[in-house]
Amino acid sequence: MEWKPTKQSHQTFHEQIVNWFTECIARGDFPIGMKCPSQRALAVQFEVNRSTINTALEELKAKGLLETRVGSGTFIAQNPWPHLLSQPKWQQHINASIHKPNIETIQLINDYEQRNDMTRLGTGELALELLPTNQLEKSLREITLRPQAIGYSEPQGSYELRESLCIHLKKRGIDTTPSNILIISGALQAFQLVALGLLEPGSFIFQQKASYLNSIHPFQSAGMHMYSVDIQSNIHETLERMKKNRHGLFYAIPTLENPTGRIWTSEEKKCVYETCKQLSIPILEDDVYGELLFEEAQELPIKTFDQTGHVLYVGSVSKTVSPGLRIGWIVGPQTVIRRLADIKMQTDYGSSAISQAILTHWLTSGIYEQSIANLREELRVRAHFMERLLEKYFSNIATWESPKGGFYIWVQFSKPVITKALFVALLEQKIIIHPGYVYEPNEFHHLRLSYAYATFEQMEVGLQKLAAMI
Amino acid sequence: MEWKPTKQSHQTFHEQIVNWFTECIARGDFPIGMKCPSQRALAVQFEVNRSTINTALEELKAKGLLETRVGSGTFIAQNPWPHLLSQPKWQQHINASIHKPNIETIQLINDYEQRNDMTRLGTGELALELLPTNQLEKSLREITLRPQAIGYSEPQGSYELRESLCIHLKKRGIDTTPSNILIISGALQAFQLVALGLLEPGSFIFQQKASYLNSIHPFQSAGMHMYSVDIQSNIHETLERMKKNRHGLFYAIPTLENPTGRIWTSEEKKCVYETCKQLSIPILEDDVYGELLFEEAQELPIKTFDQTGHVLYVGSVSKTVSPGLRIGWIVGPQTVIRRLADIKMQTDYGSSAISQAILTHWLTSGIYEQSIANLREELRVRAHFMERLLEKYFSNIATWESPKGGFYIWVQFSKPVITKALFVALLEQKIIIHPGYVYEPNEFHHLRLSYAYATFEQMEVGLQKLAAMI
Repeated sequence: MEWKPTKQSHQTFHEQIVNWFTECIARGDFPIGMKCPSQRALAVQFEVNRSTINTALEELKAKGLLETRVGSGTFIAQNPWPHLLSQPKWQQHINASIHKPNIETIQLINDYEQRNDMTRLGTGELALELLPTNQLEKSLREITLRPQAIGYSEPQGSYELRESLCIHLKKRGIDTTPSNILIISGALQAFQLVALGLLEPGSFIFQQKASYLNSIHPFQSAGMHMYSVDIQSNIHETLERMKKNRHGLFYAIPTLENPTGRIWTSEEKKCVYETCKQLSIPILEDDVYGELLFEEAQELPIKTFDQTGHVLYVGSVSKTVSPGLRIGWIVGPQTVIRRLADIKMQTDYGSSAISQAILTHWLTSGIYEQSIANLREELRVRAHFMERLLEKYFSNIATWESPKGGFYIWVQFSKPVITKALFVALLEQKIIIHPGYVYEPNEFHHLRLSYAYATFEQMEVGLQKLAAMI
Repeated sequence: MEWKPTKQSHQTFHEQIVNWFTECIARGDFPIGMKCPSQRALAVQFEVNRSTINTALEELKAKGLLETRVGSGTFIAQNPWPHLLSQPKWQQHINASIHKPNIETIQLINDYEQRNDMTRLGTGELALELLPTNQLEKSLREITLRPQAIGYSEPQGSYELRESLCIHLKKRGIDTTPSNILIISGALQAFQLVALGLLEPGSFIFQQKASYLNSIHPFQSAGMHMYSVDIQSNIHETLERMKKNRHGLFYAIPTLENPTGRIWTSEEKKCVYETCKQLSIPILEDDVYGELLFEEAQELPIKTFDQTGHVLYVGSVSKTVSPGLRIGWIVGPQTVIRRLADIKMQTDYGSSAISQAILTHWLTSGIYEQSIANLREELRVRAHFMERLLEKYFSNIATWESPKGGFYIWVQFSKPVITKALFVALLEQKIIIHPGYVYEPNEFHHLRLSYAYATFEQMEVGLQKLAAMI
């Protein structure tokens, strides 16, 4: 909805709005039964007074194109002009279909992130100035293409890329072969492939409390149930009890967990691994932040313990190079990898050949290593800056741990102040936060801050405003 | 399974094979319950005698690692060494999960297409020499990247690309706006997004008899039913009767249909459109071959009739530029496009930014138009050549229509000779065909030939052998 009424028209604002609505309905862009945005939202979008919106909507109701349902809002009428009656019932189709929509707060975040005037305090992506744009452009000049590479992909992705990943993954302690790797379009795709290719509806997905997975729905949309456990308590008993239900899977981000930024201790990792092994529960290990540890200590993935194909390991370059490449990988037993590759071939026929060629070039030439080393330093400076701000504005009302890498600080407030109302009020102040309830339903004590996206000035002003509002 | 025993080893072939199997089982690459390839297939793969395979398998059975089930083959034992018992039951996971595997003939085609020594008579892709490799490589030197473009994508994809597509689609008679377009990773992804985002399980998907959709399972895996109709008969009655079941959708490739190469007449297109409109059945129009018409006549898509958002229109550059780019598009009503964009964001967070930048460059600079004009001429020459071969070898046993564009000739035999047995026998002759039963179950009179992939010499030799075997 990028349209706005214009002063250049011979029509008044409200006439233009009525015409625009009428056309959108006639073309099927606004299907029968669709809920209209609120008067307030329309006034903001069209940059007109609420009274103008009100006049226009009343006229559309009089024409029979809109109808009000008490307590639920304004909708495109069920019974508009006769020639529209044969339109497909798109809204019914959408409502009855399989995949869950994003939760409302996430949808609002996605929408407002498109605007250039917002301060984004929780965004899980690199700031534009941290992206290696020039280096990527330079690489476009350096790579060569072979006809074999730009045809339909091998089911598991470029062999050269899988070979260079084998060498690369050794640095994370993982010893594997190209046959055990599937190239995917970012780590997110792993969840969908696993949901469709390895799990039956009704299965349980175990995860640590406060999990990134609660902010998206790949497993729930495929009919699986999420079950949060606390790895610091007795997980063996919990998992054993739950295991009686259905084949499950344990989802883990042991290194720089999203949203908490935590690193699991060696004991926690071993405990989860041994428990899952004993109960035959596969582990899906998400290591997309693993290369962003500030200190390259021995924080090894669970996958390094795994001698028997118990762990599916997922990585990506979206957090380390550029999300625009859309390249990630899954490492696992060959039979599983071949199954997931078959489904990927049925879903999207492989990932971009050009993106795969660029990443191969980066890995084999050393550009990747160098770029990540620079990035780590930039993130460390940003983390330090944000922590100083937290000490300045939040030390009386909240606690947090010093970040050891990655993007996030998980701030815990002494009172349940991080509510939907606060989130919405901040949007009006042009500030986007990622409330804790997105990652742990009904939990209003937490906030995920990110030092990877906002400028230093935005962090300063944004956090000051946030403290004032709380 | 790229491994082979080697003469350089101090071990015999069968010892090497036993060790390799044992390691694969121990690592979990071959999970408990997995079916082993046949002795014949293993002999081909390992380049050893059947008797060597037999000795090795017997030894593995004696070790308790393999077991034979009468009538079904050899499997990794359910009860191998104790330390393997805790491995995840990957094979059970795979068997119980949601997505259907590719049908066996398609899996065999995919596997054998990886080999360089095969003659591919039915492949639905451009030969390596028809891919514009140099031109694409040149474009990598010409495009510039902006940081905004290589971050996370806008939900609907690059705005510049959607703008240039609007201009481009006018040539196919389609008038649309960037808000009505979603960029996807190839046309195949449209099916999955539509299945998950617009249809409920149990819905019926209507399609023309002999359909590409029968060779893949995006809708069936999501719980929908396929229903073939014949557009040349009375479809109104059929659809009306079927409509009582559930929300459905009509899948159509009206221009250069896959596999038949047919172009629907204007009357057929209008009839399908009017019938579907009257019954409120949305149409999913697949136009990936539309730009490969040899004569740019007025063969317009159904979408050009559509004033009320009844038709979802799908296109792609996989058949016209390069499948390696992984770029396609869906055009439809805004509400539907936004819904599908939301699901795409939850599935893979958008398509490759680099691929989108390249295509934008091609569309705006005129490279695309020029490249397609050349391609059309090349395909026309190839089509002519293949038709001469058909006349030479098949005129007594089969009929076909002259291709009017695209890749395919749909050959109809007077007897039901295109069987699975023929398909397998040809594989042993290093020839891959696409049998008609892949597109229409239990139909053994048809063959999809493609003149887009094989060399002229391969066409000549391959078709001669095929005729001899039939």
